[in-house]
Amino acid sequence: MSESRVGIWLIGAKGGVASTSIVGVCALARQLIEPIGLTSHQPQFTHLPLPQWGQFAIGGHEIRRVALIEEASRLVTESRTVEASVFQACREDLAAIDARLRPGVLFRSGGTIEELADWDVPREATPRAAIERIRRDLAEFQSSTGCEEVVVVNVASTEPPPPDNSALPETWNELQAQLDDRDLPLPASTLYAIGAMLAGCCHINFTPSLGSNLPAVADLAKRQGVCHMGQDGKTGETLMKSVLAPMFARRNLDVMSWVGHNIFGNLDGRVLDDPSNKQAKVRSKDHLLAEILGYRPQTHVSIEWIQSLGDWKTAWDHIHFRGFLGAAMTLQFTWQGCDSVLAAPLVLDLVRLTVAARRRGEVGALPFLASFFKSPMGVEEQAFDLQYRMLQAWAEKQ
Amino acid sequence: MSESRVGIWLIGAKGGVASTSIVGVCALARQLIEPIGLTSHQPQFTHLPLPQWGQFAIGGHEIRRVALIEEASRLVTESRTVEASVFQACREDLAAIDARLRPGVLFRSGGTIEELADWDVPREATPRAAIERIRRDLAEFQSSTGCEEVVVVNVASTEPPPPDNSALPETWNELQAQLDDRDLPLPASTLYAIGAMLAGCCHINFTPSLGSNLPAVADLAKRQGVCHMGQDGKTGETLMKSVLAPMFARRNLDVMSWVGHNIFGNLDGRVLDDPSNKQAKVRSKDHLLAEILGYRPQTHVSIEWIQSLGDWKTAWDHIHFRGFLGAAMTLQFTWQGCDSVLAAPLVLDLVRLTVAARRRGEVGALPFLASFFKSPMGVEEQAFDLQYRMLQAWAEKQ
Amino acid sequence: MSESRVGIWLIGAKGGVASTSIVGVCALARQLIEPIGLTSHQPQFTHLPLPQWGQFAIGGHEIRRVALIEEASRLVTESRTVEASVFQACREDLAAIDARLRPGVLFRSGGTIEELADWDVPREATPRAAIERIRRDLAEFQSSTGCEEVVVVNVASTEPPPPDNSALPETWNELQAQLDDRDLPLPASTLYAIGAMLAGCCHINFTPSLGSNLPAVADLAKRQGVCHMGQDGKTGETLMKSVLAPMFARRNLDVMSWVGHNIFGNLDGRVLDDPSNKQAKVRSKDHLLAEILGYRPQTHVSIEWIQSLGDWKTAWDHIHFRGFLGAAMTLQFTWQGCDSVLAAPLVLDLVRLTVAARRRGEVGALPFLASFFKSPMGVEEQAFDLQYRMLQAWAEKQ
Amino acid sequence: MSESRVGIWLIGAKGGVASTSIVGVCALARQLIEPIGLTSHQPQFTHLPLPQWGQFAIGGHEIRRVALIEEASRLVTESRTVEASVFQACREDLAAIDARLRPGVLFRSGGTIEELADWDVPREATPRAAIERIRRDLAEFQSSTGCEEVVVVNVASTEPPPPDNSALPETWNELQAQLDDRDLPLPASTLYAIGAMLAGCCHINFTPSLGSNLPAVADLAKRQGVCHMGQDGKTGETLMKSVLAPMFARRNLDVMSWVGHNIFGNLDGRVLDDPSNKQAKVRSKDHLLAEILGYRPQTHVSIEWIQSLGDWKTAWDHIHFRGFLGAAMTLQFTWQGCDSVLAAPLVLDLVRLTVAARRRGEVGALPFLASFFKSPMGVEEQAFDLQYRMLQAWAEKQ
Repeated sequence: MSESRVGIWLIGAKGGVASTSIVGVCALARQLIEPIGLTSHQPQFTHLPLPQWGQFAIGGHEIRRVALIEEASRLVTESRTVEASVFQACREDLAAIDARLRPGVLFRSGGTIEELADWDVPREATPRAAIERIRRDLAEFQSSTGCEEVVVVNVASTEPPPPDNSALPETWNELQAQLDDRDLPLPASTLYAIGAMLAGCCHINFTPSLGSNLPAVADLAKRQGVCHMGQDGKTGETLMKSVLAPMFARRNLDVMSWVGHNIFGNLDGRVLDDPSNKQAKVRSKDHLLAEILGYRPQTHVSIEWIQSLGDWKTAWDHIHFRGFLGAAMTLQFTWQGCDSVLAAPLVLDLVRLTVAARRRGEVGALPFLASFFKSPMGVEEQAFDLQYRMLQAWAEKQ
Repeated sequence: MSESRVGIWLIGAKGGVASTSIVGVCALARQLIEPIGLTSHQPQFTHLPLPQWGQFAIGGHEIRRVALIEEASRLVTESRTVEASVFQACREDLAAIDARLRPGVLFRSGGTIEELADWDVPREATPRAAIERIRRDLAEFQSSTGCEEVVVVNVASTEPPPPDNSALPETWNELQAQLDDRDLPLPASTLYAIGAMLAGCCHINFTPSLGSNLPAVADLAKRQGVCHMGQDGKTGETLMKSVLAPMFARRNLDVMSWVGHNIFGNLDGRVLDDPSNKQAKVRSKDHLLAEILGYRPQTHVSIEWIQSLGDWKTAWDHIHFRGFLGAAMTLQFTWQGCDSVLAAPLVLDLVRLTVAARRRGEVGALPFLASFFKSPMGVEEQAFDLQYRMLQAWAEKQ
Repeated sequence: MSESRVGIWLIGAKGGVASTSIVGVCALARQLIEPIGLTSHQPQFTHLPLPQWGQFAIGGHEIRRVALIEEASRLVTESRTVEASVFQACREDLAAIDARLRPGVLFRSGGTIEELADWDVPREATPRAAIERIRRDLAEFQSSTGCEEVVVVNVASTEPPPPDNSALPETWNELQAQLDDRDLPLPASTLYAIGAMLAGCCHINFTPSLGSNLPAVADLAKRQGVCHMGQDGKTGETLMKSVLAPMFARRNLDVMSWVGHNIFGNLDGRVLDDPSNKQAKVRSKDHLLAEILGYRPQTHVSIEWIQSLGDWKTAWDHIHFRGFLGAAMTLQFTWQGCDSVLAAPLVLDLVRLTVAARRRGEVGALPFLASFFKSPMGVEEQAFDLQYRMLQAWAEKQ
Repeated sequence: MSESRVGIWLIGAKGGVASTSIVGVCALARQLIEPIGLTSHQPQFTHLPLPQWGQFAIGGHEIRRVALIEEASRLVTESRTVEASVFQACREDLAAIDARLRPGVLFRSGGTIEELADWDVPREATPRAAIERIRRDLAEFQSSTGCEEVVVVNVASTEPPPPDNSALPETWNELQAQLDDRDLPLPASTLYAIGAMLAGCCHINFTPSLGSNLPAVADLAKRQGVCHMGQDGKTGETLMKSVLAPMFARRNLDVMSWVGHNIFGNLDGRVLDDPSNKQAKVRSKDHLLAEILGYRPQTHVSIEWIQSLGDWKTAWDHIHFRGFLGAAMTLQFTWQGCDSVLAAPLVLDLVRLTVAARRRGEVGALPFLASFFKSPMGVEEQAFDLQYRMLQAWAEKQ
């Protein structure tokens, strides 16, 4: 494997998912923890040119002033998912990374996210200026850390559904000509993606926000020779849906209704308590059922912010189905997982596999990463096992 | 498709699974119900030479005197899974089938099953005599109904674990020479399998009982040019295990413990309340986890007979797993299904697919049917999706 | 006990609760079923002057044209809660009762309820005219059936929250002078209550609608010498809350959050799918927790109409509480009950106990019936056991 | 309140319940935690002469060599129920208490418990010698700490069901004459109770073991003027049963079956994995249902040791009941609680209330403490609310 350094640049770098990812990389590099939850550590992927844990340099954008180390300490004291000794051993690493974080971008992020911003976030007048700042921050990170590859991962809170962008041009050439228009309907997540690509970085959108999911930005990725993928990490309830729905389909059982209630109390949840932000998330959690089943059962997805739960997301799903002779039967499940603990290893798997893809010369969207996403860009297959087979097939080819 | 008649011969023909299967065939033949729950009705299987619902003739062995129609009526009045109008429309069919049922065989069936026998069941002195009676019953069924193919399906209650049969010969020639030995350790389920094969019938073992799972009987199947498969239909909780365990494996999550509690109140449950009968069932419900995960989490499977539930089996599973950074998380599910409604379509799929295999010239064990079984004979793969892919691959070849 | 006839007049007489209550009375009068679910059949209440099942005459108001017998038959074919033989034996009773039903009143019932009205419902111009029609219908029912006592029970769908009625007068004398004002903010449920009282009938409000819960109507009840009580029958999830919350309080456990999700698919559910109607219901399901606990945990109540569930209401509650040393713990429950089967016996208990109270000379509100209601009029006690003790204490006094 | 010191002597002093109780007392005395989970801190009990947290001295018997501080640290690192800062602040207190612990007594404790004993536990030849050692240890504790009152609380693991003791005498005079007989069927829990009483201490049996539940020992309590009570603290699943069963009874619902599955992984659980120890526990968890309901539904209680759960006990209960018209419905609950966190405040409440009772001159059994026990000695009432009313009534009298 290459010994060169590899960069991870996190959008939303002090959030739960980011801080858990950071503690995880540090703990893995120091060999304090086992690689549990990391798909890329399975035997069928070891032959790939994956970066090793000691090779990573980490930076990011953030809109909140709070210290990274303080956010990370909540994993020990609040969600109680990380052992105090592991956290202590990583304190210095966290301080060093905190020094590399830069103020983020607010642009059509919605009122709820804007209210969270208490760092001194510059407010550029045009998309072009914001993109330029992002690009500069990344270039500086690359030169100061000597990273050959940098993967930018968006793990920020969910934006409201993107404004109507049907009038946007399909090519980068045309789009870039319009970047001085302050009314251009591009949200912050897309500006980050463009900035990353212009800096020669790959881009992973772990959120349901728009990000790189626009023809003109996909065009940019190809021109720049970088990889990108999204959207919305598949961590818990939706993972379960993509595992269970194929069972019903293959057994030819008739799913009449599928109700999913999600409760949790972290910052992402507070942002989702804003109906406009929630809308994007619910859509991302819901669409796959009809795509797997081939028909449209009645579905309901609720997401409620319940403060006492903190980062512990509990999902209760009630699946009502008909079997032979029309008999109605029921499956219920309760999933109790720590949101950031579920998300962080996917973030790290995505970074490692994206780097491996780059090293093997891939450019553009990476459909073989579909199994990591609720709404995989450009991929129709939603069944988890078949998405995982895409990953295996890709790995076997290498 | 061929217009010839096809026979289904059910061992345990008045039990819940059998009577539901019988009502189902009648209702499908009369086009009273949709083919929900039938895998073989999916588009990817329609090109196979599957028998149609109107082509079936049904018979079977049974040890209880109760009228078939009475057992079937409980689907309407007790488990309330079948509509009264459907049942009424099938009354005459049921009466005709009841007239074709023959007394079963009791041989190392265990005390609990023997106590259930209130029909006038002949007690042959030797395995050979019992086998001969089974063979004769099947020959008579074939000649009286004009069936070209007959598939014998064992849906009787679970026998105690088979006696030590390590001393039994590996070939049919040797085994058949010993059939007059009344101490030969062959349970009834195996005698049925032998009788079926000697009559030229295929044999499906839907139970965890020994059945055809012996080298000498597999040898007989090949000699007779018939197909066979087993064991133990995968209907509910174990289906869920074979769907969920691969998810944990693929995400590299560490399953620490998997506890499954099953409660139900039908006749099969009463038989399983006998610890020796239960032992065979628990083993069949438990082994697959370690095989899928590649390590052995602590597991616990309980099966309790709770009379009030009747045929409604409720399973509660509690899965305790570690994710990234060692954080412990939990998945619980509650499965509430009607046991015989879940089993019956699998029985019918197995019959149809076995007939199709025969028509295409297959002989011996049918590993492509693995997805239907908790303990598929001769198949190591336990993940449901990969087993289903075996079925698809076989169908694509045809 | 008196041998005179006793009348039950149901508002919403063809709905699920009403039709189940009607089938229940018929089946009890014919001794086809056991008195399961009826509080008033317990030994501690047998000395009260309760009417017997054979004594009842039944009538009611309704806004839908559908035949009562058809609605009742769905208990057999859809919710599958009533045995076909019981239903058959009551067919003639149902037809006779259907002939006694009269078109209901629509007045500030909300658009969703008004859309359901397909019977030829007269639309009076003023509250007074509507009340007068109700009174006449009841008087005719009394004279034609010879009932000495009639209890009017509102089991109709939930109205939107009442309009602001703070300007309404506190006495009946003043209110009745305004009844020609077509802008008077009185919903149909209150007109029914007034009409009932003017006809000398007792009134039970089994819904969260306003009904008799107004000072001027309470004044009318006293003037007319009749009894009344409400609101909102306590059947399932809220019953559980009023049983479990006192446990947490008495053990001094700190309930941090209590989330309750309710899904069901009957007509009441469809009405509650209208946010304005839902608002009244949610309030009624939610307030008691803070009243029992003495502080206000974060709560969430959702009610979703899921068609496939029909009358089977499933509630999932997640209770997050802190115990000793601040440790967070969780209780979850899933309640799967048939809504009308849970409600109907409460309706019948309320009728019987109200008649007994009348026979013993009670007038006005009946606080001893608090245990039957989510929001008992004039009663602060919300703990089920203490409410039940009020009922016992009242019975012991008689 | 008196300023004198009050002693708590714990049998099984290094177990989970004891170490949590000890940390709790220290943290309460240092005002590090709120009194959550403590019944005796409610307003209706403040007028009682309850000892304050700073007044307590703690000692105990134990059979294992492990350091108390190490056991207590697992509350921070394993069950993650206690904050690290709270634990750190109590370290010195724990060391001081550890120095006061004395080797316990093994006598008919069963093989599983005996195997745990790795401290240098003396093995007296006769019950009298063992009792004498217990008495001496307590006298020394009293004199060294200057405690006026000492309450001995048995929180050790469950013994096998007591041997047949029907031949034992009913009076203390007779029993004490036989104490040199080494075949006397008295288990360790009873020897502790006798030793405590002979030392003038009150005795609380928080376990299902026999303890003081013998006529001759009750006789001794009266002679010595001490108080005692038991058996088996009501912490989780059984608390739920005693809260929910009265609801079914009062609504006249017919409980057909009640299945309870308990899984947990602490030391108590490992002892209960021995079928003979489990038997006593299951009986104590099961009997109350029939006593509350007045009839005997089918019940099933399972307790399984699942290592990964540690001290987190998860109970799944499935209650199948019939309502009106015979319709079958279901309530399920999942209780996820930390066993020792649930038990410890009850232990401390019991100590405080027992001291208050002593200070008010009570002698013998204390039935007003029934709400704290699964099998309250001498009390038939099993409904939690009515037991709690006994506590309130007693407090009001004081």
